[in-house]
This record gives sequence, C-alpha cells and structure tokens, in this order.
Amino acid sequence: MELNENELAWWEMSVTSLILQRAWQMELGQIGLTVPQTLVLIAVADSPEPITPMKLSRILHREPHTISALLTRMEAQGLVKKERNLERGNWVRVTLTKKGKEAYQRQLKAKKVRNVTECLSRQELEELNKMNRKLRARGVQLLREMLPSPYGDPLW
Amino acid sequence: MELNENELAWWEMSVTSLILQRAWQMELGQIGLTVPQTLVLIAVADSPEPITPMKLSRILHREPHTISALLTRMEAQGLVKKERNLERGNWVRVTLTKKGKEAYQRQLKAKKVRNVTECLSRQELEELNKMNRKLRARGVQLLREMLPSPYGDPLW
Repeated sequence: MELNENELAWWEMSVTSLILQRAWQMELGQIGLTVPQTLVLIAVADSPEPITPMKLSRILHREPHTISALLTRMEAQGLVKKERNLERGNWVRVTLTKKGKEAYQRQLKAKKVRNVTECLSRQELEELNKMNRKLRARGVQLLREMLPSPYGDPLW
Repeated sequence: MELNENELAWWEMSVTSLILQRAWQMELGQIGLTVPQTLVLIAVADSPEPITPMKLSRILHREPHTISALLTRMEAQGLVKKERNLERGNWVRVTLTKKGKEAYQRQLKAKKVRNVTECLSRQELEELNKMNRKLRARGVQLLREMLPSPYGDPLW
C-alpha cells in the first residue's frame, strides 16, 4: 500500500488514538466504567440544562440509535434515569441517579490517561490544541458533506 | 468539572478523534465497510507472513475475544477465511477471500478522511507526527503499567 504523507499521518494518528483510547478504556475499566458510559456521564453532568437523547447524540457524535441503546443499558445498570414529560409527548430527559453521580465522581479521579500530554512541552501542547481545532473543523466539514441531513451540528 | 491544561487537551483530542473516526466510518460506510473491518483488511493484506488472530489483536490493540468475534462476522460475510493447521493444533491463520481482496482495494479509494491533514501546513504535519510518536510511547507505557500480563507488545 503506497501512502502519501497525509495518509501516513492519518495512520499514525489512528494508531495513536487506538492506543490512547484503549489505555483510557483500561483505566476506566478499573473503576467499573466504559468509555461511552463515561462520556455520557460527563455530558449529562456538565449540561447546564436538561438533556435529551438527541442532544447527547449530537454532542457525542454518535447515531441516535447507538445512544438510545447505550442509555437503555445505563438505565438498567442504575446509572441514569430517563424521564418522560407527558405534556410534551415523547420528549425524554436524561438525568443521573445517585449511583450515576457517584460514578461521575469516580471517573474524575481516573487521571492517568487524561494527563497523557504531560509528555509534551508546553509549546507542543499549544501546537497540538491548535492543530486539533483545524482537524476538527475539517472533520466537521467532511461529515457535513457526507451527511445530507445531519442530525445536528457538532457542539464541541 | 475543573480541568488542568493536559486534561483539557485530552478532551480536545478525544472529541477531534471522535469526529474524525465518525467521518471515516461514514466514508467507509458508503462503500459497505466498517472501521474495524477495514483495519483487519489492511492488517491481513499488508502482513508479510500468515497472520494469526492473536497477532491481529496485538496489532489492532483490541482484546482477543473482540478480534475473534469480528473475524467470525467477517468470515460469515465472506471477507476472510480462517484456516486451521491440523498439524499445529489450534493454530489459525487468517487470509482474505476474493471478496475480501476486492473490499481491500475498495477501501484504498476512500481517501477523503485519510487526507484530513491536508488542512495543516507541512511544518505542522511534521510536528503532529513527532507528537503522535511521543503520545503513543506514553500510551504504550500506561497500557503496560495497567496490564499486568500484556497479551503482547504493541507492534506499531
């Protein structure tokens, strides 16, 4: 397979991301959580207003049916509660249960992988953040091109 | 949630990675493939020697049971073939079928997301590659610390 320098960089990025995500998954696994669960806990806890499954799907860049299945599992595990607003029909709001709030606190203390950029200099960190912003903007643009009817604008 | 600059960078990296992986997933979806399937196709096609499920699990940084389930599905879809070597007991070798080779060729032409770093300058690209090497080394170190008996050294 002959790769140009961008394709090579994509490969490097993907592998690095696979390794870091796997490390995060292991670290969270030690406190009984998965990466998707943790992302939902953070998104729900940090949302300034009641959050709907659709908004979670936008924030986490995952298909609505993926989020829906995840929420059903997390509800069965007692981490979240789905509340229906009868006046607004199918409008569902997701909140954390007591157990969910405890899990949220627990994941805050899993700090090893989150601090992986300690291995970079301060200047490199700034560069990395700058490049991530560019890559994200380009990624969102590509997503929009491929998704004729996007289920929402990426918020982050 | 109060985050230090590393934790903030982790967040930025994770979201960027989520968006890019989702874009890649969509692009591959247009040609009937998923990201994990594509990674397996590439790993099998590019391997200079017969490849075992265990080696795939090391290369792709995924648990053996995850790879095993993925290979079973890909075999059912006619993309790969698992051949057993009777003389060596349970030794299984994975190869691509004709359909698998066609899928491999097809994914080569999905070039949009793979070239996402076109939005960076040449100097930035070099910086990015350098940082990815550092982050990967640190990620592997973290994985080793958490995995008392690693199922193999990361090869990439």
